[in-house]
Amino acid sequence: MTRARALLFDVFGTVVDWRGSIAAALRDWLAAQGIDRDAEALASGWRALYDPAMAPIRSGLRGYTRLDVLHRENLETLLKAEGLPMPDAATLHALTHAWHRLEPWPDSVPGLTRLRRGCILATVSNGNLSLMVDLARHGGLPWDAVLGADWARDYKPSPSVYLAAAEALDLAPGACMMVAAHNDDLAAAKALGLQTAFVLRPTEHGPAQTTDLAAEGDWTAVATSMEDLASQLGL
Amino acid sequence: MTRARALLFDVFGTVVDWRGSIAAALRDWLAAQGIDRDAEALASGWRALYDPAMAPIRSGLRGYTRLDVLHRENLETLLKAEGLPMPDAATLHALTHAWHRLEPWPDSVPGLTRLRRGCILATVSNGNLSLMVDLARHGGLPWDAVLGADWARDYKPSPSVYLAAAEALDLAPGACMMVAAHNDDLAAAKALGLQTAFVLRPTEHGPAQTTDLAAEGDWTAVATSMEDLASQLGL
Repeated sequence: MTRARALLFDVFGTVVDWRGSIAAALRDWLAAQGIDRDAEALASGWRALYDPAMAPIRSGLRGYTRLDVLHRENLETLLKAEGLPMPDAATLHALTHAWHRLEPWPDSVPGLTRLRRGCILATVSNGNLSLMVDLARHGGLPWDAVLGADWARDYKPSPSVYLAAAEALDLAPGACMMVAAHNDDLAAAKALGLQTAFVLRPTEHGPAQTTDLAAEGDWTAVATSMEDLASQLGL
Repeated sequence: MTRARALLFDVFGTVVDWRGSIAAALRDWLAAQGIDRDAEALASGWRALYDPAMAPIRSGLRGYTRLDVLHRENLETLLKAEGLPMPDAATLHALTHAWHRLEPWPDSVPGLTRLRRGCILATVSNGNLSLMVDLARHGGLPWDAVLGADWARDYKPSPSVYLAAAEALDLAPGACMMVAAHNDDLAAAKALGLQTAFVLRPTEHGPAQTTDLAAEGDWTAVATSMEDLASQLGL
C-alpha cells in the first residue's frame, strides 16, 4: 500500500475511553445523591441511546442537531427510564459535558505523535467540534483539523461525513485512511474507497465486551494500538 | 474586559508573512525562466486580485469556491496582464501552493503558544482548510481548530464567517476575540459583538505600506506582536 496522506480518526472508543470517564462522572453524581447504583451500567445505558438518537438525523426525519444536544436528551431519557431523580439544568449540563473530558487510551498520545510526523491527522467523529476541541485540549491530542459530523452536518456512517472530510483536505478518498475500533465505521469508509485501519479496543465496552473483538473485514491495517499502527506505517 | 474564551485569528499578514514567501517563490520561477522582473511587485499584484475575486462569492453571484482555486485563477490573470509566459499546469499548481508554505512572523509561534494556555485558538481566515492545515504544519502553528471561509462557505467580512466560528465553538460572540492586522476585519467582527485585537504588522505590504499602520477603531486590545497580546491578556 501507499501510505495515506491523511489519517481520519474515530474518537470515542478508538482514541479515548468514554466508558471509564463517563462512569466516573456518574459515580460522583450518584454518591452526592446518596444513591447506590452501578455507574458502569448507567454509562453503557447512556451510550446505548447514542445510535438510535442519530438515526432520525441520518434519515432526514430530524434536522442536524449536534451531539451535545443528543447526549443531554439521552441522559434525561435514561434517568427517567431508570427511575432516577432529574438533576437541575446546571447539573444536567455538567454531566453532559463529562463527554468533553474523556481520557485518552495510554497509547493514544504517543502513537498519534508518531503518526503525525508523516500524515495529516484529522478527527472524523460524530462528536461536535467544540467537544472535539475540549477533548484535544484535555488529553493533549495533536490534531491538525477537526472534521466529522459538524463539518458534514450528518452522522457516520452516512457517506457524506467521510467524503466531506477528504474533500476538505483536498485529497482523493484513497489518499485517506479511516482509523477506528469499529468494523462498521471501517466498512462504510472502505465502500467509498478510503484505506482502513482497525485498532483493537477490546475493553471499550467493559470487561465483558462481545463486539469488535477482531477485524471483520479486509482492512488495510489491523493494529493493537496507535503505536503499533505507527510502526506498521513506518512512522 | 473579561478574557475571551476563544481567539479567532486572521492568518494572511496577521500570523504569516505572505509577501516575503510569495515573492521568493515567484523569484525562483522568474530566475528559472531567465526573466528579470520585480518579484515583490508581482507578489503584491497577485494579492491585489484577492479581494475582487471574493466579491462575487460574497454577493452570491458565484457559488462558494475555495481560495486555492481563486489564487490559481488570479495568477493566470496576473501573468497575462503582465505579459509573462504561462507556465504548464504542474508549475501553476506549484506556484499556487506556495500559499501553503508561508513563514510565520517571528513572534507568532511563541506568542500563540502563550495564548493557547488560556484560550482556544482557531483560524478564521479566508484560506481554505487544506491550506490552513499545511501552513500550520509548515510553521508549527498550534491551532485548536480550523474554521473560517471553508467552514462558513463564504468569505470575510461576511457576518456568517464570524458567527459560524463562534457557533461551532458553542460560544457567544462576546466570548470570542477576533485577532487581525486589518481594521476592516475587526470592524466586521465588532459589529457582531466579538471582542477585537489589532496586531500591528507595518511591513505586511512591504516597506512602503500605507494602510493599517494604526488602530482605526475602538478595539478591545491593540498590540505590537502576538507576544505583546499574550502579555496584555495575562498569558
